[in-house]
Amino acid sequence: MDQGDVQTGQNLQKQISKIAALDDATDSDITFIANPLFESKLQTTGAGAVLVPASLQEKCPSHSVAIVVKSPYAAYAKLTALFEPTQAYHQTVNPNLSDSLIHPTAILGNNLQLGDNVRIGAYSQIGDNCVIADGVKIDAQVNIQPNVVIGEGSLIAPHVYIGHDCVLGKHVSLHSHASIGNDGFGFAPRGSTDEAGWQKIHQLGRVILGDYVSVGSHTCIDRGALNDTVIGNHVIIDNLVQIAHNVKIGAGTAIAACVGIAGSTEIGKRCMIGGASGFAGHIKICDDVTITGMTMVTKSIHQPGVYSSGMPVMPNSLWKRAYINFKQLGKPKS
Amino acid sequence: MDQGDVQTGQNLQKQISKIAALDDATDSDITFIANPLFESKLQTTGAGAVLVPASLQEKCPSHSVAIVVKSPYAAYAKLTALFEPTQAYHQTVNPNLSDSLIHPTAILGNNLQLGDNVRIGAYSQIGDNCVIADGVKIDAQVNIQPNVVIGEGSLIAPHVYIGHDCVLGKHVSLHSHASIGNDGFGFAPRGSTDEAGWQKIHQLGRVILGDYVSVGSHTCIDRGALNDTVIGNHVIIDNLVQIAHNVKIGAGTAIAACVGIAGSTEIGKRCMIGGASGFAGHIKICDDVTITGMTMVTKSIHQPGVYSSGMPVMPNSLWKRAYINFKQLGKPKS
Amino acid sequence: MDQGDVQTGQNLQKQISKIAALDDATDSDITFIANPLFESKLQTTGAGAVLVPASLQEKCPSHSVAIVVKSPYAAYAKLTALFEPTQAYHQTVNPNLSDSLIHPTAILGNNLQLGDNVRIGAYSQIGDNCVIADGVKIDAQVNIQPNVVIGEGSLIAPHVYIGHDCVLGKHVSLHSHASIGNDGFGFAPRGSTDEAGWQKIHQLGRVILGDYVSVGSHTCIDRGALNDTVIGNHVIIDNLVQIAHNVKIGAGTAIAACVGIAGSTEIGKRCMIGGASGFAGHIKICDDVTITGMTMVTKSIHQPGVYSSGMPVMPNSLWKRAYINFKQLGKPKS
Repeated sequence: MDQGDVQTGQNLQKQISKIAALDDATDSDITFIANPLFESKLQTTGAGAVLVPASLQEKCPSHSVAIVVKSPYAAYAKLTALFEPTQAYHQTVNPNLSDSLIHPTAILGNNLQLGDNVRIGAYSQIGDNCVIADGVKIDAQVNIQPNVVIGEGSLIAPHVYIGHDCVLGKHVSLHSHASIGNDGFGFAPRGSTDEAGWQKIHQLGRVILGDYVSVGSHTCIDRGALNDTVIGNHVIIDNLVQIAHNVKIGAGTAIAACVGIAGSTEIGKRCMIGGASGFAGHIKICDDVTITGMTMVTKSIHQPGVYSSGMPVMPNSLWKRAYINFKQLGKPKS
Repeated sequence: MDQGDVQTGQNLQKQISKIAALDDATDSDITFIANPLFESKLQTTGAGAVLVPASLQEKCPSHSVAIVVKSPYAAYAKLTALFEPTQAYHQTVNPNLSDSLIHPTAILGNNLQLGDNVRIGAYSQIGDNCVIADGVKIDAQVNIQPNVVIGEGSLIAPHVYIGHDCVLGKHVSLHSHASIGNDGFGFAPRGSTDEAGWQKIHQLGRVILGDYVSVGSHTCIDRGALNDTVIGNHVIIDNLVQIAHNVKIGAGTAIAACVGIAGSTEIGKRCMIGGASGFAGHIKICDDVTITGMTMVTKSIHQPGVYSSGMPVMPNSLWKRAYINFKQLGKPKS
Repeated sequence: MDQGDVQTGQNLQKQISKIAALDDATDSDITFIANPLFESKLQTTGAGAVLVPASLQEKCPSHSVAIVVKSPYAAYAKLTALFEPTQAYHQTVNPNLSDSLIHPTAILGNNLQLGDNVRIGAYSQIGDNCVIADGVKIDAQVNIQPNVVIGEGSLIAPHVYIGHDCVLGKHVSLHSHASIGNDGFGFAPRGSTDEAGWQKIHQLGRVILGDYVSVGSHTCIDRGALNDTVIGNHVIIDNLVQIAHNVKIGAGTAIAACVGIAGSTEIGKRCMIGGASGFAGHIKICDDVTITGMTMVTKSIHQPGVYSSGMPVMPNSLWKRAYINFKQLGKPKS
């Protein structure tokens, strides 16, 4: 929490062991109220301490320490770091490595530039000429191809793949099985027969990830065909997302799980993309656009705002009738 | 097959080498008829043996042994285990390990509790303090973080990731590249500029998988934010499914491929979820709900039954007209 | 480029260092014009050389070498191979392996048949009885189960899984984390209670990939239940695609990212399947069908042509009204 942000509410002292939700919290827990709608839950919480906005301080039960903050949700977010056990775990996974942070089974290419405090886990392989900045943590079984650059403080989870020549900014986080820099899906037809086949277009661009980018598990970001695929600073991407070659994503945009973005599409800054949405290729979405979940984005969007598509769930019997009527919508009017 | 379930039909003896479909089966194959609609195929099958319900026994050709069972489909399912070669393969992959089931390249953390007959494949890494029960088989190149508990008889395929502190029940099956316990997608906005970025909310909950859970290839089940993500007993999940933080799935539910379930949604028991369906966050689906494929589930469902949405495929020329009419549906009536 | 395909346009000589788009190209770049709509860009390009059709040769600026070809796009595709650095990278990753192409950490099963110039990367494991033909390149951290056959010249990227008994044709390309031959999603219900659970149907078929098949990152192709899952020659498949058990795909078909194809469905030859489309199980799509992105294919298609479904994106306020009207479509007419 920022200095000056916190005021203790009462003259109580509590030993806090974990963070818990308003309903679940007991005397050894700290909780938070992010939504004024939950005011009644605040009044009955068993929490030992509560992060509250000033406006709700009076509603805290007397047995709870009220900690007044500007944004309880942001304060909760920061607080989670104190209770995250992973750091401790990582130090003990390889207890024999006191004089080295590189696991002896890691395979290192030639001509690497490794910063201070770089960790590389078991059975990982790093290609030639990579530049790995200070404090980067590469977990086990990672594959990094040659000429990759990784900025300081980045975290690479197990089973990640990073293709050759890709560039990651500072404090990038790649979750397990993320694949960065596979070939884009580029083929030229060789003819019209089914045995003519496809001429592969080798993908000569890179993937560039900005600072503080977070990439979910199993998310694919393909390398560009000629130019690069570029993900701006502070872009956060959930699991199982497909980002095709030459896509550009503006700074601060958030992309939920199962989204697919076809080739060369550009998405602006500070957009919010709902889960399982799909984007056609070669379109442009301007800054500050929100797309709700499962929307089919077939054309460019030039005005900030909220956009949607898709049909709501209904009982199957209704849907079967609707199904017929949808088709009628496509028939020429007589 | 359950005892008493089977009655031999005729006085024939056959040597059976494999299971085959009604149309394909020859004299050395066993087949089954699960659907009375295929009665005509039964009469012409070349199979040496047929699993049939009593009602169809008379329709078997005279050259086939009729094996009468209550449910031919269930009997077929059980029979497949006899023809599954994997068990034999696993024993021969590492022929030199006669005195050990742990491959010498597996990296084991401190303070592990390993049951009897635990197998661990090549280049796998197990973190500190894990508890691995009897008969668990962990294949090669698996990554298990500290403090994980795995129940007896579970099977973990290659390239699986299991995050710290997750708990798997008995006889859980994780297919290749499954990722259990990555961080949920939790971030608090730090401000309104695109360089303000996002405050990561460390995900402090776990993933709990019940007994007999099956998880497909590339399926992601994220750890909870504060509480756990919980998958009930006998839940079966196909490939490329996204299950977000704090989701709860009731016992016996089946989830087909490419489904996405957003955070904190609860799905009841014995539900059947069709492929590529999507669920909004923070909704509740009651027990015994069937969702057909590609349905967009935006709100809670309180009554058992079959639910659907989505538009059927149509020729592109019709769809282009329908496309215009869909938009009209959204315009205020004049 | 085919012999006779190329004619130099002017009496210029250029040193070319890379391929670039029409707008970006400078004097040391070669570019191409694939679409006559870009004729104006051709006239202003700074490229040192341009691949052009004869019809546009006159429009090339005088400072560019015009290289006349039948199909500039196909010529560009072929040209990319000259600028692809991967081949060089692979040779230098393991500089100490001058007398062997098999990394010393690779684990090889018994009774392997390895062709000439087979490469196997670090920490990969190959099961017993596999047949790996000439020139196959298996990268690091790959898992190949027993009895797999891989045709000549195939490329297997890191973190790929290939299940037992699967067969890959010649020049197959599997991108990172592809999973071939996991179990299909086959279970028989054991009863109607949620603790009755599911009887696993062991999947006894294989996956057969034809020659020149390309499979994207994180794409899953499941093994058949009794028969095989079969992908024809020259089929190209993008990332994060689900192909269920017993699916058959005809030669030359292209499948974009995030598509899901349910069990036993057959897709014809030379089809073009748009991204995030979904196919119900047990249907047949004839040859030469194009499916646009996000289409819901619920039934068989018997005529070649272009097919679509899905609702276009609209402002959220319109969509909310449309949402209500969609439901009305399902209500019986009064």
